[in-house]
Amino acid sequence: MGGSLAMAALERAGVDEVVGFDTDRGALEEALARGVLSEAARSAQEAAAYADLVVVSTPVRSIPALVEECAAAEPRPRLITDTGSTKSSIMEALSPQAKAIFIGGHPMCGGSDSGVRYARPDLFVGATYFLCTTGAAFPKLYEMLQQFIFDLGARPTLIDPVAHDRIMAAISHLPHVLANVLMEHVGRLCVGGKRALQFVGASFTDLTRVAGANPPMWRDIFLANREAVSQSLREIIALLEDYVSLLSDGNESAVTEAIYTAASYKQEMLALADISPETLHKVTVRVPDVPGSISRVMSALSEAGINVEDLTLHHMSRSLGGDLILYVSGQDVAEKAAALLSDLGYAARVSLLGDASD
Amino acid sequence: MGGSLAMAALERAGVDEVVGFDTDRGALEEALARGVLSEAARSAQEAAAYADLVVVSTPVRSIPALVEECAAAEPRPRLITDTGSTKSSIMEALSPQAKAIFIGGHPMCGGSDSGVRYARPDLFVGATYFLCTTGAAFPKLYEMLQQFIFDLGARPTLIDPVAHDRIMAAISHLPHVLANVLMEHVGRLCVGGKRALQFVGASFTDLTRVAGANPPMWRDIFLANREAVSQSLREIIALLEDYVSLLSDGNESAVTEAIYTAASYKQEMLALADISPETLHKVTVRVPDVPGSISRVMSALSEAGINVEDLTLHHMSRSLGGDLILYVSGQDVAEKAAALLSDLGYAARVSLLGDASD
Repeated sequence: MGGSLAMAALERAGVDEVVGFDTDRGALEEALARGVLSEAARSAQEAAAYADLVVVSTPVRSIPALVEECAAAEPRPRLITDTGSTKSSIMEALSPQAKAIFIGGHPMCGGSDSGVRYARPDLFVGATYFLCTTGAAFPKLYEMLQQFIFDLGARPTLIDPVAHDRIMAAISHLPHVLANVLMEHVGRLCVGGKRALQFVGASFTDLTRVAGANPPMWRDIFLANREAVSQSLREIIALLEDYVSLLSDGNESAVTEAIYTAASYKQEMLALADISPETLHKVTVRVPDVPGSISRVMSALSEAGINVEDLTLHHMSRSLGGDLILYVSGQDVAEKAAALLSDLGYAARVSLLGDASD
Repeated sequence: MGGSLAMAALERAGVDEVVGFDTDRGALEEALARGVLSEAARSAQEAAAYADLVVVSTPVRSIPALVEECAAAEPRPRLITDTGSTKSSIMEALSPQAKAIFIGGHPMCGGSDSGVRYARPDLFVGATYFLCTTGAAFPKLYEMLQQFIFDLGARPTLIDPVAHDRIMAAISHLPHVLANVLMEHVGRLCVGGKRALQFVGASFTDLTRVAGANPPMWRDIFLANREAVSQSLREIIALLEDYVSLLSDGNESAVTEAIYTAASYKQEMLALADISPETLHKVTVRVPDVPGSISRVMSALSEAGINVEDLTLHHMSRSLGGDLILYVSGQDVAEKAAALLSDLGYAARVSLLGDASD
């Protein structure tokens, strides 16, 4: 993330000089060699001294101490920000001196742990970039940071740090916990001599795509945001307990209503992405596990002017290949797609959303 | 599902005659017109009389009564099976007379509610096809059904009905409940004037792809399998409560261990699909929302001989397009893919699995 930010600063935001520091000497040298940095410093303080803007882009747990270190540089930097994916615990930990020149940041665009070799100046284009002020920093500093973020191509979004952490807990940290516990539950399930893991389908693949991701990093995020994550977990537990009691009561109408509630929020989510949810149809295509098969499917659709709104792959095995699941707008479009692909020799079928395929 | 089974019976399994019945007269006529059936009956009993094999393919809640009706046909059919996605409650509900000629079935291949116009004879190829015997039916009948399923191209898998329902609860019904509660939790969350739903990223999209699916059908499945679903829910609640207490204790090592546990089961799952999990790399490609953009990306990779192991799309909006997330084997392959796509003008980046992108 730091590398991409440095590149974007130089290439997009018209910044003259980016001085970098990393405790990993090799990474620092690589950044210099690749032109990601204009200069390498020997310490964080040396990099921070004189700076108009310091960006602390490290794992969340190390951010507060590094911000303090940079805030104590002589001469003091004008403004310090960070890229941590939690905000409250970082901002609460800061001294008044640091707070006076600190505005928290969180770009929603990934690449956070991937290293300087993967740095890209266009990483931030179109991304929501959260900003959290302590109220202690001058408004002028906020305006400066906001302009910088516009220049990166991102969308600066002012948010209260507690609200930020609650939202991130719900939309990101909670999904990771859910993926982990689902993976564990199914992973250890063995009944009647059969392991559940052998029979998983597309819905399980989707739900566990982020399971087990980067343990040290996610441990830090969960712990840095423990209050908001716990709050989301308690609310999810309550919703799950509702399902348990509705099922034990055999309460048909309440179970149906719970599913419709999810359906209506799902529709809102799709509408926010400009997709007409009521027209979405699912086309499932069996593709062999060889390079080019997905490409041939997508080319055929493209040539026919068919736009794909969402897609996912359920990989079964080297011998069976997988099911490519495409979502398109309109039943006629879905049928045209399936007919086209069938003619090309791919087993393709249209189904309504949410059939009991797995 | 019934339509596909009829087509597969005629085209793949060498069956001479398929007599069908549907309470929806229009569907029955369409099936006849499309050649999916050889003949239409005026009742389930009429269709079942004389049959070597009766397949009851209806929503789960109506299956037991229909099996009884078919078992009472004169002359009696030799064997009755079903395609319901739960098994115990159906099998327990049957009379001794019905049990004597019933073997439960559950093909894991979807298309269950999509209607006869989407019927396909190759729907079953490569699919796990669960079979559950009550012990009352003659072994000869089981052999006959097993052979029929082989002929469809599917893989017959004998399983105890209770084990079947436990496994389906864990790998399919539970993921649907989790997707629903996550969607509801985030859908209603609004803090500091911001709606959480506006900021969701790729992990949330993956976790909620099945949220809100087909409420009447899923209500029936949840209720028909209520014991096993509740058991899975209680185990998930216990795992979530573990997370809450580990977080409140600040127990770093146990949180890390919980994530590693999920990671190791995830690796097993990938290994079952012949994917080397340790070499998987993620390539994120920004694609505009126009027909052909995904096709151009996939063609370029295909021409370079790059195989895609998994993929998913995070659609942002009509104006921003979306992120196509590809998983490939090997860091060198991932870098080659990203370089290739960058040269074509697509912003592409490689990252490690599970970075904090959202």
